[in-house]
Amino acid sequence: MEKISQACAANHELNDGKDAINNVSVCGYDSLHQLLAQNLKPQIFQEVSRLLLGLNCGKPLQTISLAEPVKSLSLKHGFDLQAFCFHADKESVREPRIVRVGLIQNSIALPTTAPLSNQKRAIFEKVKPIIEAAGASGVNILCLQEAWMMPFAFCTREKGWCEFAEPVDGESTRFLQDLALRFNMVINHIPRVGDFNESTYYMEGNTGHPVFETAFGKIAINICYGRHHPLNWLAFGLNGAEIVFNPSATVGELSEPMWPIEARNAAIANSYFVGSINRVGTEIFPNPFTSGDGRPQHTDFGHFYGSSHFSAPDASCTPSLSRFRDGLLISDMDLNLCRQLKDKWGFRMTARYELYAEMLARYLKPEFEPQVISDPLLNKKAS
Amino acid sequence: MEKISQACAANHELNDGKDAINNVSVCGYDSLHQLLAQNLKPQIFQEVSRLLLGLNCGKPLQTISLAEPVKSLSLKHGFDLQAFCFHADKESVREPRIVRVGLIQNSIALPTTAPLSNQKRAIFEKVKPIIEAAGASGVNILCLQEAWMMPFAFCTREKGWCEFAEPVDGESTRFLQDLALRFNMVINHIPRVGDFNESTYYMEGNTGHPVFETAFGKIAINICYGRHHPLNWLAFGLNGAEIVFNPSATVGELSEPMWPIEARNAAIANSYFVGSINRVGTEIFPNPFTSGDGRPQHTDFGHFYGSSHFSAPDASCTPSLSRFRDGLLISDMDLNLCRQLKDKWGFRMTARYELYAEMLARYLKPEFEPQVISDPLLNKKAS
Repeated sequence: MEKISQACAANHELNDGKDAINNVSVCGYDSLHQLLAQNLKPQIFQEVSRLLLGLNCGKPLQTISLAEPVKSLSLKHGFDLQAFCFHADKESVREPRIVRVGLIQNSIALPTTAPLSNQKRAIFEKVKPIIEAAGASGVNILCLQEAWMMPFAFCTREKGWCEFAEPVDGESTRFLQDLALRFNMVINHIPRVGDFNESTYYMEGNTGHPVFETAFGKIAINICYGRHHPLNWLAFGLNGAEIVFNPSATVGELSEPMWPIEARNAAIANSYFVGSINRVGTEIFPNPFTSGDGRPQHTDFGHFYGSSHFSAPDASCTPSLSRFRDGLLISDMDLNLCRQLKDKWGFRMTARYELYAEMLARYLKPEFEPQVISDPLLNKKAS
Repeated sequence: MEKISQACAANHELNDGKDAINNVSVCGYDSLHQLLAQNLKPQIFQEVSRLLLGLNCGKPLQTISLAEPVKSLSLKHGFDLQAFCFHADKESVREPRIVRVGLIQNSIALPTTAPLSNQKRAIFEKVKPIIEAAGASGVNILCLQEAWMMPFAFCTREKGWCEFAEPVDGESTRFLQDLALRFNMVINHIPRVGDFNESTYYMEGNTGHPVFETAFGKIAINICYGRHHPLNWLAFGLNGAEIVFNPSATVGELSEPMWPIEARNAAIANSYFVGSINRVGTEIFPNPFTSGDGRPQHTDFGHFYGSSHFSAPDASCTPSLSRFRDGLLISDMDLNLCRQLKDKWGFRMTARYELYAEMLARYLKPEFEPQVISDPLLNKKAS
């Protein structure tokens, strides 16, 4: 078990250590869903799940039973393994388009002080059996977390970490290519991208919001912080994405309340599936750094809380992977659900794109005036 | 207690009536939060609340203690009454800008077969003590639900209900004006607007996304279905809104999974507060109607599940009002939190408005081509 999160540490303090055993049981839980499952009566858990996971009335979420060798890999290597199924209605003209999709979350494998190439190779070694488990489960499309083969070192603002950078066909790509070929999988690979100190390492791109047409469906990648902008999600939707992955690296205190909200909203608003991935663990760096928030210098960025999950266009979602352990989340999804939800809710039809385009064009001009109607009594006071 | 929701009815069926008492206890609950509070140990409930309500690490949500006469009104008239407080950090230059905001949800008061003017007057009578409770609590801005003074009759597509329409200064406005003056409140009044059969009753507007500058802050109204479009929320934000209300009328099977997601996402993405209001109860109409979904004709639109709540720009939210009873939800909010979150996350700064404006302008053209990169192996197959 990883070091407990700062949030849990705060809970410990609040409780004054009066009830240490109970505290540990609250803090050591793997995921919200598991915490509720263990502490609620089955019928109440079912109703709470219905509300939290957005399940259609009364239907429990269907799990997929995985083969024994896959389960053995999970036990042997200690990674969380969960598998679910999103359904769409049967249609009379189109065949179901069921795709099996996987998400992997992982912590780093060696201290950040180890030689960089050793760090990378050790991550390859720990991620390999997880990818093999996905392959053996028949996963068609697999997405790894942001900057999966390195610590999330951008917080340090030190340039030495740039040595993790690779050419497009570098060793990480080749590592994944071999596995992808072996299992006939599409593996999405986000080699590195910055977040909070992004501007120290990268510049904004200008390549738009491309959608990748694979043998298994149209996918897109909304990297990390990109999830905070509803218009990024929209742009992938307008370009025809059916599954959008959000490989991330984010820590508890900062973003955990937003994590389940933004992805589900994107899936609802754009009638596509979303796969959200966050790394796990706490990464300690050799040199202390400050965070511009007045706190004293420290050597870690906080606890990466995992909690990778899938969201569906019908507003449902899967439970999340562990907040502490590596994990593989698998889900079957019938891509027909995307169009079924478009037909049902008509968001694409009712959106006022002309109005929005005009609004944004106006907003960009230096002479932009917000549309404000003031209470006449206020104006009287002011004059 | 209102008729139980269809979702609950479905649960009943699933459970085969084997455990009727337990079923009632699951179905009869007032709100998710209350269900969890009653069934989890306090420490576990605290951690679950932290995750679900997006509270900062370990801090329990602060409630406001209301005066005895207000509580008496709630008891006497049987409406749910809850009051909370959102905090912002103290600043050194700006004073706190604390506003007390209220939301009211209500069911109808007479059968839909009663004379229309009697129906309206009976709703006035039942809503009046709730508004008085808000006034006596010092609420500054109060928002009622969509079409609060009538049944949500749009589902019938019958034109007779148009008689509920009023001029801008009609009796509902005057009723609220008197109370607003008496309590020095801003009361937002949405006299009528359509939803699912909207096109039978209304046309789309072309008045943009106005923000109203009141004595207590800049507010805006995103009516009902408007909440499904992230760009509506964005437009209110660009026009400077600090609180956006979403007066709604929506039923369980259809939208309950989306209800807590869309409002919270809007508050996060646009760094403002959101007040979400939904009516309660099941409304039976004299003439049966069909819903275009193959189900046989029926006389109700489903259960309006209430669950009104506030969301804050820091991703936190209040628990929701009852799923079954009328209710008044009050919250203090320091409007400085809006700018604090803008400063913290920088969404306004990092949004790529030029890119989005260009994307939308392109999307509007008949020759629009989505940006799709196809797997070369796919192309080979096709050619």
